[in-house]
Amino acid sequence: MKLWDKGYATDKKIDLFTVGNDRELDLQLAKYDVLGNIAQSRMLNSIGTITDEELKGLVAELNNILKTVEDGTFTIEDSFEDVHSKVEWLLTEKLGDAGKKIHTARSRNDQVLLDVHLYSKDAILELKDWAKKLFDLLIELAEKYKNHLLPGYTHLQVAMPSSFGMWFSAYAESLIDDVYFLDAAYKVADQNPLGSAAGYGSSFPIDREMTTKELGFENLKVNSVAAQMGRGKLEKSISFAIASLSATLAKMSMDICLYMSQNFGFVTFPDELTTGSSIMPHKKNPDVFELIRGKCNKLQALPYELTLITNNLPSGYHRDLQLVKEGLVPSVSTLKSCLDMMVFSLENIIITENIVEDDKYKYIFSVEEVNALVQAGTPFRDAYKIVGAKIQKGEFKPDLNVNHTHIGSVGNLRLDLIKEKMEANF
Amino acid sequence: MKLWDKGYATDKKIDLFTVGNDRELDLQLAKYDVLGNIAQSRMLNSIGTITDEELKGLVAELNNILKTVEDGTFTIEDSFEDVHSKVEWLLTEKLGDAGKKIHTARSRNDQVLLDVHLYSKDAILELKDWAKKLFDLLIELAEKYKNHLLPGYTHLQVAMPSSFGMWFSAYAESLIDDVYFLDAAYKVADQNPLGSAAGYGSSFPIDREMTTKELGFENLKVNSVAAQMGRGKLEKSISFAIASLSATLAKMSMDICLYMSQNFGFVTFPDELTTGSSIMPHKKNPDVFELIRGKCNKLQALPYELTLITNNLPSGYHRDLQLVKEGLVPSVSTLKSCLDMMVFSLENIIITENIVEDDKYKYIFSVEEVNALVQAGTPFRDAYKIVGAKIQKGEFKPDLNVNHTHIGSVGNLRLDLIKEKMEANF
Amino acid sequence: MKLWDKGYATDKKIDLFTVGNDRELDLQLAKYDVLGNIAQSRMLNSIGTITDEELKGLVAELNNILKTVEDGTFTIEDSFEDVHSKVEWLLTEKLGDAGKKIHTARSRNDQVLLDVHLYSKDAILELKDWAKKLFDLLIELAEKYKNHLLPGYTHLQVAMPSSFGMWFSAYAESLIDDVYFLDAAYKVADQNPLGSAAGYGSSFPIDREMTTKELGFENLKVNSVAAQMGRGKLEKSISFAIASLSATLAKMSMDICLYMSQNFGFVTFPDELTTGSSIMPHKKNPDVFELIRGKCNKLQALPYELTLITNNLPSGYHRDLQLVKEGLVPSVSTLKSCLDMMVFSLENIIITENIVEDDKYKYIFSVEEVNALVQAGTPFRDAYKIVGAKIQKGEFKPDLNVNHTHIGSVGNLRLDLIKEKMEANF
Amino acid sequence: MKLWDKGYATDKKIDLFTVGNDRELDLQLAKYDVLGNIAQSRMLNSIGTITDEELKGLVAELNNILKTVEDGTFTIEDSFEDVHSKVEWLLTEKLGDAGKKIHTARSRNDQVLLDVHLYSKDAILELKDWAKKLFDLLIELAEKYKNHLLPGYTHLQVAMPSSFGMWFSAYAESLIDDVYFLDAAYKVADQNPLGSAAGYGSSFPIDREMTTKELGFENLKVNSVAAQMGRGKLEKSISFAIASLSATLAKMSMDICLYMSQNFGFVTFPDELTTGSSIMPHKKNPDVFELIRGKCNKLQALPYELTLITNNLPSGYHRDLQLVKEGLVPSVSTLKSCLDMMVFSLENIIITENIVEDDKYKYIFSVEEVNALVQAGTPFRDAYKIVGAKIQKGEFKPDLNVNHTHIGSVGNLRLDLIKEKMEANF
Repeated sequence: MKLWDKGYATDKKIDLFTVGNDRELDLQLAKYDVLGNIAQSRMLNSIGTITDEELKGLVAELNNILKTVEDGTFTIEDSFEDVHSKVEWLLTEKLGDAGKKIHTARSRNDQVLLDVHLYSKDAILELKDWAKKLFDLLIELAEKYKNHLLPGYTHLQVAMPSSFGMWFSAYAESLIDDVYFLDAAYKVADQNPLGSAAGYGSSFPIDREMTTKELGFENLKVNSVAAQMGRGKLEKSISFAIASLSATLAKMSMDICLYMSQNFGFVTFPDELTTGSSIMPHKKNPDVFELIRGKCNKLQALPYELTLITNNLPSGYHRDLQLVKEGLVPSVSTLKSCLDMMVFSLENIIITENIVEDDKYKYIFSVEEVNALVQAGTPFRDAYKIVGAKIQKGEFKPDLNVNHTHIGSVGNLRLDLIKEKMEANF
Repeated sequence: MKLWDKGYATDKKIDLFTVGNDRELDLQLAKYDVLGNIAQSRMLNSIGTITDEELKGLVAELNNILKTVEDGTFTIEDSFEDVHSKVEWLLTEKLGDAGKKIHTARSRNDQVLLDVHLYSKDAILELKDWAKKLFDLLIELAEKYKNHLLPGYTHLQVAMPSSFGMWFSAYAESLIDDVYFLDAAYKVADQNPLGSAAGYGSSFPIDREMTTKELGFENLKVNSVAAQMGRGKLEKSISFAIASLSATLAKMSMDICLYMSQNFGFVTFPDELTTGSSIMPHKKNPDVFELIRGKCNKLQALPYELTLITNNLPSGYHRDLQLVKEGLVPSVSTLKSCLDMMVFSLENIIITENIVEDDKYKYIFSVEEVNALVQAGTPFRDAYKIVGAKIQKGEFKPDLNVNHTHIGSVGNLRLDLIKEKMEANF
Repeated sequence: MKLWDKGYATDKKIDLFTVGNDRELDLQLAKYDVLGNIAQSRMLNSIGTITDEELKGLVAELNNILKTVEDGTFTIEDSFEDVHSKVEWLLTEKLGDAGKKIHTARSRNDQVLLDVHLYSKDAILELKDWAKKLFDLLIELAEKYKNHLLPGYTHLQVAMPSSFGMWFSAYAESLIDDVYFLDAAYKVADQNPLGSAAGYGSSFPIDREMTTKELGFENLKVNSVAAQMGRGKLEKSISFAIASLSATLAKMSMDICLYMSQNFGFVTFPDELTTGSSIMPHKKNPDVFELIRGKCNKLQALPYELTLITNNLPSGYHRDLQLVKEGLVPSVSTLKSCLDMMVFSLENIIITENIVEDDKYKYIFSVEEVNALVQAGTPFRDAYKIVGAKIQKGEFKPDLNVNHTHIGSVGNLRLDLIKEKMEANF
Repeated sequence: MKLWDKGYATDKKIDLFTVGNDRELDLQLAKYDVLGNIAQSRMLNSIGTITDEELKGLVAELNNILKTVEDGTFTIEDSFEDVHSKVEWLLTEKLGDAGKKIHTARSRNDQVLLDVHLYSKDAILELKDWAKKLFDLLIELAEKYKNHLLPGYTHLQVAMPSSFGMWFSAYAESLIDDVYFLDAAYKVADQNPLGSAAGYGSSFPIDREMTTKELGFENLKVNSVAAQMGRGKLEKSISFAIASLSATLAKMSMDICLYMSQNFGFVTFPDELTTGSSIMPHKKNPDVFELIRGKCNKLQALPYELTLITNNLPSGYHRDLQLVKEGLVPSVSTLKSCLDMMVFSLENIIITENIVEDDKYKYIFSVEEVNALVQAGTPFRDAYKIVGAKIQKGEFKPDLNVNHTHIGSVGNLRLDLIKEKMEANF
């Protein structure tokens, strides 16, 4: 059953090609489709299109369907084109013509749009929640390991004193920027598109402010054409936030893979979290982090994919737009699983003690010594020469106690300020 | 003169390859470099590194340099690697050692970072300003042409009644979503990175809260490593906003190019804004809009370019990062010029009257007629059959008066609501 | 069962995350895995690692497995990590230790690499075949409709006389360029990587020239490290060819969607190939072509996705590389289905007759008239003025007979030359 | 002076926006424009449009212009829109109407297309030449250092014995795959588009086979519409080859940056090729390789930029296409300079001796010992246990002599085979 059924059989081959994997994806949208139908029914009742009796039946039946969605028994058989057809069929089976009435002043595009807006709001909040969980863990680790020094690198060259505290909390703070983009995407999603119909509104006197309130939207996407243009644009907006957050995870995973190499040996993980080789006892393959890195790098291609699909399409609906949810929905799932795995693994991270005592890191303290002389009154150039000479003669012995004091330095992480900045977004 | 001069001549060939077009781009950053130096001088004075006398000299000289930047006489000669070297040289020429002192507790990377943060804040505000100008014009045009009907298309097929009012205000409302991303990028930019030095802070007791206030930043990028990781990430953040806004301009330009075709003939522009052929008098080539479209499509590649440069780089500064400003700065200029040109051209748009009277658009009113019957009490299926039969017999005569009433429909644009939503961001 | 089993249970959660959808994809690689195992067995027999008896058993059993792959009964259960584990398990079940021996001097990475090389060769040839089928159809249509004129557009403005013959054969000729890239990708694929083991070869005296011949490779990927680096690079190579071919299909689909609009009305298709609305009898939605366009645009993101995954990874295997086949295999299937659908639909295309008789196209003949005067001896400027004046006075009456004669013009398509150029690649 | 001058002044602002940086880029195309004009003149003479006298004047004058191009004195002033206008103006100044005649049966688009085809052929050959130079050097280095072992990594974990010989020649062999794509792009370029005029041919009886021969093209782009569609497609084709080659350079640069880190210490370069810090004497920043990496990563965005510009444009010329050469021409220059710098630097590479004697690499020989036992008759499982036990007890003493013998292994690089495969493309 298809909503645009014309009475004659569309070629089977065409059918297979055009339906794609809509049914599978639509299972993730089913909940939102039902909620949209409930709001639409109430609104249609309020303008007299649906009787009180009909409304009662519709709401009851839609709630029944919602239960099947929630307990996982809701299905979309091959005989249905999508979730909308299935829900309409279920309602009509039970309630006859009332089931068809809920389609008044709507189109399939209108329904998908609404579903994706509602889905996106939840998806973004879940991602934000995961980002917060990871943030909290990183802050906790930073606090725990604030006194464990690490060499800091520039150009991959050993350069300056850093610490695990700095490293963990740097990624925590970096997540805050990603949250700004999740929030921007949320604002795009939090606008009710319902009522745009085929993209030009309708002649029914529908009450769009009512559905906006019913569905918990902060705003209305006022213009029907603008609402329709949101298809693709909303998904792209979320994809920017996904790309931003993914980049942070990928970068941290790259660090971890490097730091787990025998050539660094800064961190490791329990055997259960790595793969290895019993004949090379030192080998601990960081598969989990390589896959987080790989998956998060792949996720960064999502905005491009969505841009290519939507680019240079004149205004108005085009069937190409069916493909944008195929990109979005699995990407959200992938990113959530990467965040989950990141948290799960970092909870078990084992850091190496006394790393900077290794001779190859000793010069990271040379700049400190110059600065100390300068602060004690020696002109910079002289201080520089004094330390340089010591190094040349092999007499340089680093003081491993770092006394950085400014905000955001090894000795003064100010995790409180970072936490405050994050929490301002929750 | 280079900040990292080691005393021996680096190979010329290497030099040419590594400096790139830094000098040219740095002219756009010069203003911010000077402002950063003033704030740094004040802060160093406050912690006793710079005397009051020295501070007075530095601020005076930096203000002199600022004037040359503003009047366009500031230059970066080939003998200087970048703006930072040039400014330091100017100060040292005039003030001797005091000129060198401002470099205390900083590194070149620290300076670039700060310059880019300051530059970005201004750039984003300017883009937002342009977006608002375009928005205002579109709302004005929507109001002016709200009663001029247009056929609305789905699948590029003539489908439903729309109007110039709908079309102009749809793009206006769409710009609001882009502003959300400009605001997100602004938040990323509005965090003071100064003091991160080479990416790990320093042992000087610098006062980062003071420079944050001096430079007008809302927030501090607390962690020095996080501040350094902002290089590339900040530019990418802005590029997402640029891509979002560019997509809106490109899409509207596509519509205009199509609508200027003889096959549509919906809009046109004065001769000065088009190119043509005197032998094909009908020909009005929409070069301006084709170039806006092309340039804005190209701008959408910026996030990918920046992602490719920064992707999979472990934490810590890498020279690759020098290339990210090369992408950002010209993109901002291009987008501003596209916005400027869009506003300039749309101010002169000429719309065609009575478009929908053409016979090929008559069926856009058929759904209206069905809906009218339904609202008058005829069951939907019967209404549908009645109108369908009229069409079949060639008796369908559309009523060209569209009586859509719901919010966001042809008959009720509610530009006030759209304006309100936009203004909430200013 | 996993090839790298270490004796203790890897965490379930990790397991789910790391295995991904390998099993599903591996079904498409199963055939090649078996063929690789047969060649490997023969080679190991030739160097004395496997006895003649063992070889006989292995080849027989592998052929049995091959049959199950071909008749669709081969499966990879959840208890197996991938196709390699399943095949090895099947062999060991039947043949004991001999089944394990075929893994001598190989690693899982080695096996995947080989499978992907073999799969790619077939995939590219199939795509080339489909490109040829489409080419042949386009040439046939060009021949059939060579005398049916079309307006040619520049800037979407009506400009010059063209024809359906020109249009169809332009896309045919354009496909030739795509074939050059399919051929380049084929050369990359047609190099035997077998024997690279974990990416550094092995100490077994394997005979790589023998497996090259056995498996029908034109060349050997000589260096083991280079062979391993082919992972990701091979997939990217194919993705360039896929992107090239996809762009051609997408562009032609865009033309068709536009030409099916009521504003053009140049082509149409039987009802079975379109979707519509019985109340808007003129509406014929080109869903098939919109989906070809959308899918082919999405396919053009593949190179970027693969680039992001592999970018900036140092040499040597990384688990990230598991993700590249996830991108390649479904993309090949999608492109094949788009080609299939394109051929299927174009076989049914209906073109409109006498298009250029419409008054809005009359000026496409004005340049012809100028040229005719010039060729008859009138100086260009005078000719231009004469025709320009006629137009101004509304006296211009186009001669609808186009007499272009040069190669590749409306009057002289030279399809033979185009066919010749295509056939040189087969 | 513009070719499409309509007699009234186009707005200045528009002018600036539309001309872009054509003039600068066109200097690189000037040579090809002149050569195209010579061929066109000869052809027009052969069909009687230009007299012998006129031809003589034109060829002489065009050769004069060619000389100014070659000696760098050719300029395109702001009063000219592009190279084509300037050349036409020069000819008309000297030769009067004959100068205008060469424009017969051409359009500006036709000229750009031809220039880009000719430019591309040269550019691709130069890139191929540079790839060959780099290949030769890598083979030479591989031969020189074939006995210097390196640890081979998987998952960035120390894994198996490799060598500098393996590493250098792996990149050499990898370049061969890139050459396949350069060759594919060359085939796309090596088709004469001249005569396509505005994209639909012309009514002049031009001889396209003659210009094909005159200009040294292997093939004719037969169909005029196909020739025009090559605009953008040709540039994209080259960009695929550029992306492929760039990825190889970027990957090798990543290896080098890693290997120069104190945590690896495998290679270094003379001071002139690095930057450093006199206070951290161990610091050798690999700026050159970081910039090669960064630039080559950026180059990999080129296909996406070009795809975005051309995507979903219906057939026929659009002004957007002006932007594609802006992407191509500087990319070719950048890639050439990266190749130049790579060759220049690698000629000076200093490798570290006896790397694998470090204890952290000793287990790379454990698999060798197992294999040795297996080849001597011990069943694999027993051999594995024996070596595993030795390792557990700390008794494992690696034999640093690697006796790999198969083709493409550490002991048998078969550089001859690799060279043979490369040379087949020259």
